[in-house]
This record gives sequence, structure tokens and C-alpha cells, in this order.
Amino acid sequence: MSRMSPELQASIDSVRADVANLHSELTRYGLVVWTGGNVSGRVPGADLFVIKPSGVDYDDLTAESMILCDLDGTVIPGSPGSDRSPSSDTAAHAYVYRNMPEVGGVVHTHSTYATAWAARGEAIPCVITAQADEFGGEIPLGPFAIIGDDSIGRGIVATLSGHRSRAVLMQNHGPFTIGRDARDAVKAAVMVEDIARTVHIARQAGEPIPIPPAAIDSLFDRYQNVYGQPTEGTD
Amino acid sequence: MSRMSPELQASIDSVRADVANLHSELTRYGLVVWTGGNVSGRVPGADLFVIKPSGVDYDDLTAESMILCDLDGTVIPGSPGSDRSPSSDTAAHAYVYRNMPEVGGVVHTHSTYATAWAARGEAIPCVITAQADEFGGEIPLGPFAIIGDDSIGRGIVATLSGHRSRAVLMQNHGPFTIGRDARDAVKAAVMVEDIARTVHIARQAGEPIPIPPAAIDSLFDRYQNVYGQPTEGTD
Amino acid sequence: MSRMSPELQASIDSVRADVANLHSELTRYGLVVWTGGNVSGRVPGADLFVIKPSGVDYDDLTAESMILCDLDGTVIPGSPGSDRSPSSDTAAHAYVYRNMPEVGGVVHTHSTYATAWAARGEAIPCVITAQADEFGGEIPLGPFAIIGDDSIGRGIVATLSGHRSRAVLMQNHGPFTIGRDARDAVKAAVMVEDIARTVHIARQAGEPIPIPPAAIDSLFDRYQNVYGQPTEGTD
Amino acid sequence: MSRMSPELQASIDSVRADVANLHSELTRYGLVVWTGGNVSGRVPGADLFVIKPSGVDYDDLTAESMILCDLDGTVIPGSPGSDRSPSSDTAAHAYVYRNMPEVGGVVHTHSTYATAWAARGEAIPCVITAQADEFGGEIPLGPFAIIGDDSIGRGIVATLSGHRSRAVLMQNHGPFTIGRDARDAVKAAVMVEDIARTVHIARQAGEPIPIPPAAIDSLFDRYQNVYGQPTEGTD
Repeated sequence: MSRMSPELQASIDSVRADVANLHSELTRYGLVVWTGGNVSGRVPGADLFVIKPSGVDYDDLTAESMILCDLDGTVIPGSPGSDRSPSSDTAAHAYVYRNMPEVGGVVHTHSTYATAWAARGEAIPCVITAQADEFGGEIPLGPFAIIGDDSIGRGIVATLSGHRSRAVLMQNHGPFTIGRDARDAVKAAVMVEDIARTVHIARQAGEPIPIPPAAIDSLFDRYQNVYGQPTEGTD
Repeated sequence: MSRMSPELQASIDSVRADVANLHSELTRYGLVVWTGGNVSGRVPGADLFVIKPSGVDYDDLTAESMILCDLDGTVIPGSPGSDRSPSSDTAAHAYVYRNMPEVGGVVHTHSTYATAWAARGEAIPCVITAQADEFGGEIPLGPFAIIGDDSIGRGIVATLSGHRSRAVLMQNHGPFTIGRDARDAVKAAVMVEDIARTVHIARQAGEPIPIPPAAIDSLFDRYQNVYGQPTEGTD
Repeated sequence: MSRMSPELQASIDSVRADVANLHSELTRYGLVVWTGGNVSGRVPGADLFVIKPSGVDYDDLTAESMILCDLDGTVIPGSPGSDRSPSSDTAAHAYVYRNMPEVGGVVHTHSTYATAWAARGEAIPCVITAQADEFGGEIPLGPFAIIGDDSIGRGIVATLSGHRSRAVLMQNHGPFTIGRDARDAVKAAVMVEDIARTVHIARQAGEPIPIPPAAIDSLFDRYQNVYGQPTEGTD
Repeated sequence: MSRMSPELQASIDSVRADVANLHSELTRYGLVVWTGGNVSGRVPGADLFVIKPSGVDYDDLTAESMILCDLDGTVIPGSPGSDRSPSSDTAAHAYVYRNMPEVGGVVHTHSTYATAWAARGEAIPCVITAQADEFGGEIPLGPFAIIGDDSIGRGIVATLSGHRSRAVLMQNHGPFTIGRDARDAVKAAVMVEDIARTVHIARQAGEPIPIPPAAIDSLFDRYQNVYGQPTEGTD
């Protein structure tokens, strides 16, 4: 690994710690089982991102075991963790970082309700205000694509580019979410499952009432601009 | 912040501690995700209430970080926590305190099953004795109202004034609950979700048997007057 | 409280400790919320039983706070905990102990799925081997009865006397379970909810296959006589 | 117990520790209640396996309390734990080890959703990529068989021999899973419940989209050969 500035090194270390810690939110909210699911975070100001190793227990994830990759998804030789394989979804994360420069974090899970919508190939209609707040309307469906080339990454980017939603339901597969950083993408992963569950349950007993588009716009605009603490963004 | 008597200060501190602690009941029972949901409590004998800050992690809530507001929902300048924004639902809480003097606590969540009924715009019929005990009959639906003015607060007050129920399902949004203090409102938030879930599941497999109105009255009366320890109210 | 033998005192203390500890199984398995639900245990060789106080937090239950009652449900004056009210379901527990001498423990909850069957007034058919093992066939429905006299106790005893099942679903109310001791009744409370949930979910997608009566008999017989450790009964 | 080599003793001790620890995954993922469910592991290079004792609390399982059996399911006299009865499902585990030499671990649970499919006598169709990855297609149904002879073991072996799936849904009973070792069988038990739940929920709201057989083959092949760390197999 070529020498890097102390600033870049500190930035990488910070993203490693964040990405490692954020995985505990996936288990806290029951979005993953066994070693499934993964979080990644872009290193600000560099063509690098940090991602979970493949097939390692959630209890064993540490900042040092996270894996540093370039934007082609190639592990940076000699970096901590580089003796292990990165997540098998690394190519999809890398494709998103290469093609959506505004994205700083990506998350993938097979969370139950979101995956159930994906198995039927259905987008989630906007019938609760929390969804209007967080995703600005329906949560869209992405194409069927299998692992092994760029097709998952292409499907994510094609669906989410220019869309208000930070979550896409990849058909027969599960949700991918994006955010301005890894934490924001994890929040989207938590919220998409919560909304997928609530709307599923609402529909089991009849037809939910749609929210008028003007109200969706108003809720989305307020939430993006007003919610949360002034110095912290929207978390 | 103007000087206040030691008694009032002690009362505020006590409500701050209660409100901060009670948020852990929302996570214990899975009523909230991420930073969603909020509890507030009126300061007895003063035109003040204490509420959660906006967008702060549940793990980080402390008595000092709670925010003191007047009954217009304005943060009391110079009080602990006053450098942060209060919950984005503060205006709705304030409206309730201004218009329902008997209310000492307010809670809002997007708990799954209660929100699912709200998304369909349906009140919950009284088919289990726990609901008769706690809410004295059906749990009513409130109007569709979006954040930004008094319309949520007006909808809560219009629905619950003179109603036995301490819970209202705001259409497309979720439950708001009230109580004689913050703890009582939190209990109502826990119970409305438990009942919303049980009745939803009962209806999935056929029609539940209604409870005769005279039996509902009898159960409600007993529970309000007999249950619990003599010196502790109904908890 | 009249003087009692050291043996009886030791027996009471042992039941107090068991009953207090067993309440944690109700929260572990999510059978109760807030202060709902209750466990009692008969004192072997005496006309006494020990039950949870009314409306006390699960986190605050201790052996000393359990309440000692006679078989009419009257609190024994001067005994530890006798300054508090016993569970509001004490009369129903007492009725069972008076009328079913073989019963050493009683449990009541409003667990979600069992209560959903009760709200529809339906017994649970025997379609899984775990139900045949544990309850020897269908889990029966008891009558609608409201608190305030002996009608709940009478309904439990009328339904379970001579029945293989240790659980009854009281209509619109929830499950009551019995056992040879408090632990056995708690096990039945855990199992009735697990079975109520599994059979509910099975039926959501079609008709479950009934188990032939001869196979039910064989499973029930084996489980009562063979399962578990020789010196410990069937747990 | 006849003398054994230090190597064999170490191997037995290692399997005892693994089998004891792996039971905590069953409770972590909510696959079991009370004392139900069991894990076993074959002792490499010997005609022996280690299994959970019957009817013991999950909190009380230790390496020393695990029970060592020969491939007929007979407890090895004088070995640690041999004063207790092994799991009542021991005969089924033994049958699998005798007849499937490639199997190193067996798990049985009554996990909710997998048992619900079993109660209806339905195999789980392959509509999500996680199922294609892990089980290579549908998860098959096994025959109705009751405890007491070899019929459960025969049903497992007849269904899984030559099948890609490591899980079978025994009709009216619940899932049995196999693996190259105990951990691999536990992973299959976790995954079969996760998939059974997701596909059940997907079907509640319409018809899931089948995955084309060629895509299933491709996903299964990749997952078996690429996923995970090179030195650790597929976990």
C-alpha cells in the first residue's frame, strides 16, 4: 500500500470505525441473520470505500477487520484486513460509488418485509407519513439481477438516480439503500423495513388510504430541511 | 431564563428525569425505530412541559438533554438543553396541554400495528377485555393532518375530549396517547400497540366476537377504580 | 399471622422465590406487557398459595413482594407483602386451587396469538406434533366471563376438569394455564402461545393437515411418560 | 467407558464445546422455546456424536452436560453427562449419522414459520435469491412420522439424500437440518426459518415471482464456491 497523508489515514480510520459500529444497528433492528447483510462507507475526498468482510460473524466485526477498496472494488493491498475477502456484494457497492458521487454510504440486507415486497416485484405505495418524510413517495422496485457482474449495481443506480427514495427493492433479492454517509444509509435500511412491515400489515385488512401528492411533497420538504438538530443534519 | 423557586426547579428536574427514563419503554416494547417517537410531561402547577429533543439517539437521552417549553411550545431560553431543537411534534404536544388541562403526559409513536389501522382510517373495535379495561371501548380514529400548524393538535383534542380512550389513531400517521402524567401516557402507548396487534391478528382468521356494551362499561369502571395498589393509582 | 412450623415457613419461602422468578419467563417470551399477567403457586401441604401483587413492574418483583393468600383468595394478614393488593385475578386462581386439588400452579396472560383465538371464540385444532405432545389434542375455549365474581374460575375449572389440555382460552379475554406446580403452568403458558402462533400462521396460507387421533394419543402418552430427565419430570 | 487416545478425547471435547455453544444461536434467533430443539455434532473420525440432554434449560447447557452417543444412539457409559437422558430426538439424529456419512451436524427445531409450512404439508418454493444461495431451490417436505422408531430418521434421509437442500420440513412436525458440521447445520436452521418467514409474508399479498432455474443454479454454484473467507468454508 502506497504511503498516504496523515489526514487521509485519519479519515480512513474514522470510516472504518463508523462502518464497523453501524453493523450493530442491523442486528439491533433484526434486519439480518447469521453473516448476511453489509454496510459500506466512502472515504471523503478519496477514491476509496470501506466495507465488511465476507462471511464473518457480526460479533467479531472490528474497525481493523473492515476492508479498504478502491472504486473498482479491488482490495487495497497491504491495508489492514486485506488478507480477507470483502463482502460478496462489493462489486455492487463499488458501482454505486463510481456512478453516484453524492453517495457516501451503501447498505444491503435481506430484511423480511422489504424482501417480501421484492419477491412479488412490487413497489411500496406511500400511505403513511413516515414514508413521505423519509423517502418522499413510493419506494421503487429495481430489476432482477444476479451477482457476478455489474448488473446489481446498474439496477440500483438506474432506479435511484434522480429519485427521492434512498431505498430500492431489488426484485427477488432485497433492499439496497444509499445515503450521504454510512449512517444515513443505515437509517434508510432501518426505515425501509419498518415501512415495508407497516404497509404490508395495513393492506392485510383492507385498502390503505393514499396520501395526496401535495401533502407528500410538503412532508418530504419539511423533513429534509427542518427535522433534527441544526448542526447534525437530519439524524 | 427568569429565576424560579426551588420547589418549581425540583419539580422540573423530576419531570426531566421521568421523561428521559420513560423513553426506554418505547424501545423496550419496540414501539419506535431510530430516533422516531417522543414523550412529554407537564410540569405540575406551572405552564411548562418537558419534551425529547429532535433526532437524538435513544441511547443518548438524559434528563439534562430534555427540553423545557412553555405551553406555546417555545423553548425556555437558557434552560438546560435549550441549545437544541425540541421534537418536531412539539406543537402538537403544546396544543394538547393548552386545551386539555387534565392531561399531564403525551406520547407519539409510529408503532407498527396501530399505524397500520391508521393507514386504513379504521378505529379499533372492542373485542378483548384488555381494551375494555384500558380504553373503555373502541380506540378512535383522528383526522388526516400534516405537521406545520396546529392541525395535529386540534385533531387529537377534538377526538379525545370527553372520550374514554386515552389513544387516538391519527389517519395515515400513527397513535398519539395522553395520560394523567407521562408514565400513564406511555402505558397507553404500550397498550394501544398490544391491542392493535391482537385485534388485527384475531381478524385475520375470521370475525371476532364483540363484547356487550354493558360488560365493557363494567370492565372499564372496575379497572379505573380497583386495579393496582391503593397508593399508586392504576399502574 | 398465626405461628407456623419451620417446615411450612421454608415451603412458603421456596414457593415465593419460585413464583417471583418465574415471572421473568413471561417477559422473556413476550407473553405480557407493562404489569399485565400473573403467576401463582400452591404451597404444598397447606391451604395457601402465593401470587403476584397487582400492578407492579416486572423489574421490581421479588420473593418478599409476592403475596400469600388462603384458598378463598384472602391475603394472610401480617405476612410479607400483605400491605399490598394481590393480582386482580386472585379470585380466579383461588377458585382453581379450591376445586382442582391436583393443580399446583396457575398462570394468566394476554399473550397475542392465544388471545386472538379467544377473541374469535375458537379452540385451536391439533395440527402440529408439539401440541399433541404438550396438550394431547385441541386447546379448548372457555366461556365469556367478566371479573368480579367466581365466573372466570368456574369457567376454567369447568373447561379443564378431565381435559388433557393444561390451557384454556377464555373467550374475548386470554389464556389461563394450570400445572402440577408454578413452573409447569408457566411452561404451558409459553407453549400455548407458541402453538397458537404457529397454527394461526399455518392457516393463513391454506388448510393444515389434521394429525390422526391415534397418533395424537401416542405422542401425548410418550411425552408425559418418557420426555425429560428421570428425576425431574417432564421439563 | 473404554480408554481412548488423547487425540480422540480432544476431538470429543471440542465437539462438546461447539455443540453446547451453538445452542445459544437457537435462542438468539428465536427458533426454540423452553427446552425444545436440539443440536448434535459428529466426532470426526469416530463412530460417535454429541447431543443435547433432554429437557434441560438452555441457560444451563455446558460442554460437560452434552451427551456422547454411538451411531445407534446409545449413550456411552461412564462418559460425562451419561447419567442423564439424551434428547428425545436422538434416534433420528443417529439414523442420519449412520446413513449419511458426509453429514457432520444435525439440528431440529419447531421454529414458527418453517413449522407452519410443515403443518400444511407444503414445500417452500424458491422465490428469493437467499434461498437459491443457501438451499439451491425449493425446501422439500418430508413424510409424517412419529417418534418412537426409525421413521423420522428414515424420512429425513430419504428426502435429503442427493438433494441440494440441507433442510427438510417434516410434515406436521417441523424442520430438521444437516450440515458438514454442527455449525453448518445450525446455520441451515437459522436460514430455513428466515426464508420460511419471508416467503410466507410475500405470499400473503399476492403471488411471488419465481426465479428462473438457470439463475437458481448459478446462484447456488457461486455461493457454495465463492462466498466467505478462503480458509473458513462458506460461513
